[in-house]
Amino acid sequence: MAGSKIGIDLGGTNFRVAIVGDNNEIVTHRKEHVGEPRDPATIVERCARVVEDLAGGRGGTVGVGIAAMLRGREGDISVSPHLRWRDVPFGKMLAKRLGPSFSVGVYNDVNAIVYGEGVAGAARGSRDVLGVFVGTGIGGGLIVNGQLVEGASNTAGEIGHCKVRWDDDAAPCACGNRGCVEAYCGGSYVQARVQKELAAGAKSKALELAGGVIENVNPGHVDQAAADGDDYALALWSELAPLLAATLGNAIAVLNPDKLVLGGGFLGRAPTLYQLVETTLEIVGNRPSQEAVTVVPAALGDDAGLVGSASLAAGGVSLVPR
Amino acid sequence: MAGSKIGIDLGGTNFRVAIVGDNNEIVTHRKEHVGEPRDPATIVERCARVVEDLAGGRGGTVGVGIAAMLRGREGDISVSPHLRWRDVPFGKMLAKRLGPSFSVGVYNDVNAIVYGEGVAGAARGSRDVLGVFVGTGIGGGLIVNGQLVEGASNTAGEIGHCKVRWDDDAAPCACGNRGCVEAYCGGSYVQARVQKELAAGAKSKALELAGGVIENVNPGHVDQAAADGDDYALALWSELAPLLAATLGNAIAVLNPDKLVLGGGFLGRAPTLYQLVETTLEIVGNRPSQEAVTVVPAALGDDAGLVGSASLAAGGVSLVPR
Repeated sequence: MAGSKIGIDLGGTNFRVAIVGDNNEIVTHRKEHVGEPRDPATIVERCARVVEDLAGGRGGTVGVGIAAMLRGREGDISVSPHLRWRDVPFGKMLAKRLGPSFSVGVYNDVNAIVYGEGVAGAARGSRDVLGVFVGTGIGGGLIVNGQLVEGASNTAGEIGHCKVRWDDDAAPCACGNRGCVEAYCGGSYVQARVQKELAAGAKSKALELAGGVIENVNPGHVDQAAADGDDYALALWSELAPLLAATLGNAIAVLNPDKLVLGGGFLGRAPTLYQLVETTLEIVGNRPSQEAVTVVPAALGDDAGLVGSASLAAGGVSLVPR
Repeated sequence: MAGSKIGIDLGGTNFRVAIVGDNNEIVTHRKEHVGEPRDPATIVERCARVVEDLAGGRGGTVGVGIAAMLRGREGDISVSPHLRWRDVPFGKMLAKRLGPSFSVGVYNDVNAIVYGEGVAGAARGSRDVLGVFVGTGIGGGLIVNGQLVEGASNTAGEIGHCKVRWDDDAAPCACGNRGCVEAYCGGSYVQARVQKELAAGAKSKALELAGGVIENVNPGHVDQAAADGDDYALALWSELAPLLAATLGNAIAVLNPDKLVLGGGFLGRAPTLYQLVETTLEIVGNRPSQEAVTVVPAALGDDAGLVGSASLAAGGVSLVPR
């Protein structure tokens, strides 16, 4: 379909809509606060108006990256905690509202980000990519044979719920299971643990770096403390790095990607941990697959999801049927 | 290319050559002992003669599944311990010998087996498949978006070298690393461990089932003993099942396949362990991906690799360039 190539990044706080150019650059974009009400009909209408405005009377393809668990490949949302949506046929609603001059595809936000890094960012030109983002939680996405991997039920890439422990004392994860790598290395879990341990009397320079207020300590302070040689921080990073490295190494052994893209708000602000994970991966990883992979930091930041979802829809991936 | 659709299964003991029909059935086949000498030129010549004989003057496509680590996608063998080959341009040698009326593709044997199960066996009709074979070692293969996954350096699917432990006491693996699931659950490792523990005084019905000769005890005896309620066997299987289940569950969380094909000489003769792994996987696996996957036993046996490699070559996958 000729026309505009449009990407939408729909999160719990903001949504962004962008026209993406032929070289996967952002030509123009609009950002709005999600706010309230955030029921599906309201959000569909607001997204559609921005799309129509940016498209200026032309039609086109619209790819939406959404922080949600999808079901199937027709744009149905199973659950989006951020938007407080459950069982919403979002793709069909948006396609119907936009009419026949637009084609719509809906993608998991992390999948869209990884695809964006693949077509225009840190993994540009790579055929086989594993992208892992360590923020408050841990998400991932895969490109195999140059194609996004959505999986049988559109939940591929859930590397955060790989198990690193399976004994009875394994840490509980918000997913309802135990021992997930996210429950150890996800930013919100790390922050809660550190604050709890400091409150229980642990000594760390991280507290000083946070101005002496336990509630203000975040993983970035711990990383800075580790860089400064703080015993507590070094011990914690030395415990967590192998868990993350083993998880990454196992996925690499199975997938044999040529690029591992690492990003996310936690890891992006934790250069000491990043370095430790990269070094540990060299040791713990399967040698033949390790030799084939290059670890690269995510390059596109907040634009990755816009570029990725726009490219996926323009490429005809999982478009909502009419 | 019109002509015969031919598969070759080249192992360390035998090689088989088959004409595969339009419905992926084996039309006719020939089996030969590899024997000695087994240098590349000799094996190429022997394979080529059988191919020419079966093809009866017609050309065609020839897919070879080989027990080897490949390098790249042009049929180069990095190392085949069974054939005692290292750095052999096998695909190019065979293509040159067969001449322009044949096209040749070379594939890892387990990849070919998984692809065979995907096109004509236990995962027929599935778009996304994880196949895992637990024999003396543990190998695997992936089908994603309906395509074989070879990976960046043609080593995708090495699930046997996923780590289940990363402490200093992790078991050494033949790959040179430590803590690989194969070093715990691979048939040869299990057999060596059981024989060693029995020699050190452990009591198990497995010994009785093996006629009282420790050197004859194999994992099948342990499985039979476990089925009979033997304490030693049950304790061992209860230790190993979570390691294998966690590894499978982690790969399923990342890949979100609709079929997990389980096979291999060890697991195929260990129904008690198979059942225990399947049950543990239900508990330890990531729920959304677990709900989407069906566990199925491999169905094609020794024919899977022939069918798979023939289909891959006929489909034009990674053919040797001229």
